[in-house]
Amino acid sequence: MTYCLGIITNSGLVLAADSRTNAGVDYISTYRKLFDFSLPGERVIIFCSSGNLSITQAVISSLKKDIKVQQDVNLHSLPTFHEIARYVGSKTRQLLEQDRPWLEKDGIDYHCNFLVGGQIQGEDPELYLIYTQGNSIQATPETPFLQIGETKYGKPILDRTVHFDTPVDVAAKAAILSIDSTMKSNISVGPPINLVMYERDSLVVRHQLELPLRDPYLGKLRKTWEVALNHAVESIPNIDWEYYAQGEESDLSTD
Amino acid sequence: MTYCLGIITNSGLVLAADSRTNAGVDYISTYRKLFDFSLPGERVIIFCSSGNLSITQAVISSLKKDIKVQQDVNLHSLPTFHEIARYVGSKTRQLLEQDRPWLEKDGIDYHCNFLVGGQIQGEDPELYLIYTQGNSIQATPETPFLQIGETKYGKPILDRTVHFDTPVDVAAKAAILSIDSTMKSNISVGPPINLVMYERDSLVVRHQLELPLRDPYLGKLRKTWEVALNHAVESIPNIDWEYYAQGEESDLSTD
Repeated sequence: MTYCLGIITNSGLVLAADSRTNAGVDYISTYRKLFDFSLPGERVIIFCSSGNLSITQAVISSLKKDIKVQQDVNLHSLPTFHEIARYVGSKTRQLLEQDRPWLEKDGIDYHCNFLVGGQIQGEDPELYLIYTQGNSIQATPETPFLQIGETKYGKPILDRTVHFDTPVDVAAKAAILSIDSTMKSNISVGPPINLVMYERDSLVVRHQLELPLRDPYLGKLRKTWEVALNHAVESIPNIDWEYYAQGEESDLSTD
Repeated sequence: MTYCLGIITNSGLVLAADSRTNAGVDYISTYRKLFDFSLPGERVIIFCSSGNLSITQAVISSLKKDIKVQQDVNLHSLPTFHEIARYVGSKTRQLLEQDRPWLEKDGIDYHCNFLVGGQIQGEDPELYLIYTQGNSIQATPETPFLQIGETKYGKPILDRTVHFDTPVDVAAKAAILSIDSTMKSNISVGPPINLVMYERDSLVVRHQLELPLRDPYLGKLRKTWEVALNHAVESIPNIDWEYYAQGEESDLSTD
């Protein structure tokens, strides 16, 4: 699998991804899933990808090529993020049109998803999720994060700690925790973790990192989190069993 | 869906379940998924069920009937938990043998799982997971919890806070948090939460509860947890971006 997430807050954006790809448990490898297509000073565009690696790599290559050969329509020429999302969707459709029948007849999963977030000069920061089918949805202040891949393990922590008014550096820590929790619970998600934190209106990527498994900060974060979680569980008031004992007996009886 | 979990520790057992059943988002209802088949003083047997409701209800009914008509083989006559797990597996196989072809031809999911845990006089407490296929696995000190249904959201908290030497009352709080986190992130899991906490060698269920959505303890637990999680995220040391800036530039470049 893979796990990537994007968070948009009123002070910026975070995009983060693990690096594990697997075709069965006996064929696990490391691929970067986070890509920077920024044009510093004019636009910041960060991608994350999940799903069928041959398709996502082909989409990313095609996006790069359109920039290189200066196609009329490319990531650096499109005036809005909405159009960028549509353009990435149409690339995905084109490539799937070619490959899907061949994958489908051997029962190979061809699904893929992208997150694309950033800011174009004169516009607000935006964050989109592009589906296999080429359609897309946008993150909003009410739902300020989007996830792709192995999303379930890392969702509760985001649901409880990330809001549109969360400072972007706190959102970055929540993103690392969300991926690290997923890595601990599911072997199809693995290090290194790549992350970009983008500060609104800066139009340049100033903060990025790659955390390998034995990174000292990741170790410290994991330890702090584990201690805090255990402390939190213990600090929860004990259950008042007497209170619940009243009139409960009969509910559980099988007679 | 549904979410149930069982935890075995050296001081006892916890079994817990949500109560939501859904056949599509427009047909959501409440069913108890936790059942007590204990014979106080001689044996404690607690069940949780997930999956196709018609199958799990049929299995539970059949188990009750075998006790009632005093079949030679029933939950109260079998001498070990291993044999109980095999017996529940064979009931599941019998019922699926009848119903599966009819469900399968309309594409209806017939999968179901059970957790069964407890203690028989003279034996150690045990906890089993029984699969749709009738086979089963047992929880061990290295892997002291088992989950069925919508398991992913609630796994990270168990992975970080539950061990074989966790006091059983702390494990009970972790179980509620695991289900509550799942309820917050996924609407196919819903209240009330039913929970049994069993103390080793007591051979009687002394601690059980049912937490509806507006239960005051559940509200307090949820609030305490949310505050603690947010505090934990904030208490994590800030990222030292300078440290990661060295030699990273080129990795992200698309040129």
